[in-house]
Amino acid sequence: MAHYPPSILNLIRNLSRLPGIGEKTAERLAMHILRSPRKDAENLSGSILELKNKIRICSMCFGLSDKDVCDICSDPKRDAGMLCVVEQPADMVAIEKTGSFKGRYHILQGVLSPMDGVGPNDIRIRELLSRIAKESIEEVVLATSTTVEGEATASYLVECLKTHPVKLTRIASGIPVGGDLKYVDAVTLQKAMETRRVI
Amino acid sequence: MAHYPPSILNLIRNLSRLPGIGEKTAERLAMHILRSPRKDAENLSGSILELKNKIRICSMCFGLSDKDVCDICSDPKRDAGMLCVVEQPADMVAIEKTGSFKGRYHILQGVLSPMDGVGPNDIRIRELLSRIAKESIEEVVLATSTTVEGEATASYLVECLKTHPVKLTRIASGIPVGGDLKYVDAVTLQKAMETRRVI
Repeated sequence: MAHYPPSILNLIRNLSRLPGIGEKTAERLAMHILRSPRKDAENLSGSILELKNKIRICSMCFGLSDKDVCDICSDPKRDAGMLCVVEQPADMVAIEKTGSFKGRYHILQGVLSPMDGVGPNDIRIRELLSRIAKESIEEVVLATSTTVEGEATASYLVECLKTHPVKLTRIASGIPVGGDLKYVDAVTLQKAMETRRVI
Repeated sequence: MAHYPPSILNLIRNLSRLPGIGEKTAERLAMHILRSPRKDAENLSGSILELKNKIRICSMCFGLSDKDVCDICSDPKRDAGMLCVVEQPADMVAIEKTGSFKGRYHILQGVLSPMDGVGPNDIRIRELLSRIAKESIEEVVLATSTTVEGEATASYLVECLKTHPVKLTRIASGIPVGGDLKYVDAVTLQKAMETRRVI
């Protein structure tokens, strides 16, 4: 690598700090940027800074926003009685893409993980409880992942909320749509069998 | 994608213009940049602009440089009698990494490719001939690729230089080191057989 001029080496080094980008890929990207129109490089460079300057955390749901309150929280058409609890902003985006939820969100910004030293005070659980106490929320959909940590977090929230007069639901887990039974892992299949529903 | 704030969408769009980066990867990179320290994002953004501002073409070899004449061309320790002709700056870097060549380079900035409308005047052949006429070059190593276009370009240069009193050599092609004969393609194997050398 040491045979490129310093400014190319510098970009290669910075690009290879990104996840999933090795030195070879960084070299290829740097060469592409070198050959591409100046405007494209300026746009890319500018949008990185703009992201850092503009994006903040929504003061209601703790999701990503470029305003104090995000578009979803400030949208009067969203059902204020439904609150979907997710781990990360990307989870919210995944649910939004499906178009199947018309309420609001609460982003925990993590999951309970005693192994990594993440306890209830390290994620936005206190803020969630305070929202449930203050806002007129009828149903809380627990949409944390179905990982060990996600399930533990959901269980913890059930425990916290059992005295609140709010309906608690958990997103269904089971066989993915289009999934072939023989390729589904045993734990998922067992779960799907246990939570079978009457048709 | 439309569920992220505009400044995230903007970065995702710019990142996904890079080669080999799809929308999913761009989303993952944008989220990483969002979470990473401000300094890292500024460095990445800055190094993209710096690349565009500083990198120019070396006036001697037509390789990449951040000065008028690149480090290799201006290095008095390099053998000025040896000139290695390559297609692209990355080819020069590949040879430099091996440490097996101590002369200078000439970067053609392309290969002859009649199919793509690239003729002798579209790449730096005129400049190569003028260097060979002016500089005291004893050997020209033709190190274009062993593709159809690379071989055609090498043949064209042999034709151009046949009246010059300069030694012309071509990098060897054959079985890659560590290559298993039974997995080598027939054309390479045939070439390796034809150009076998006495030991």
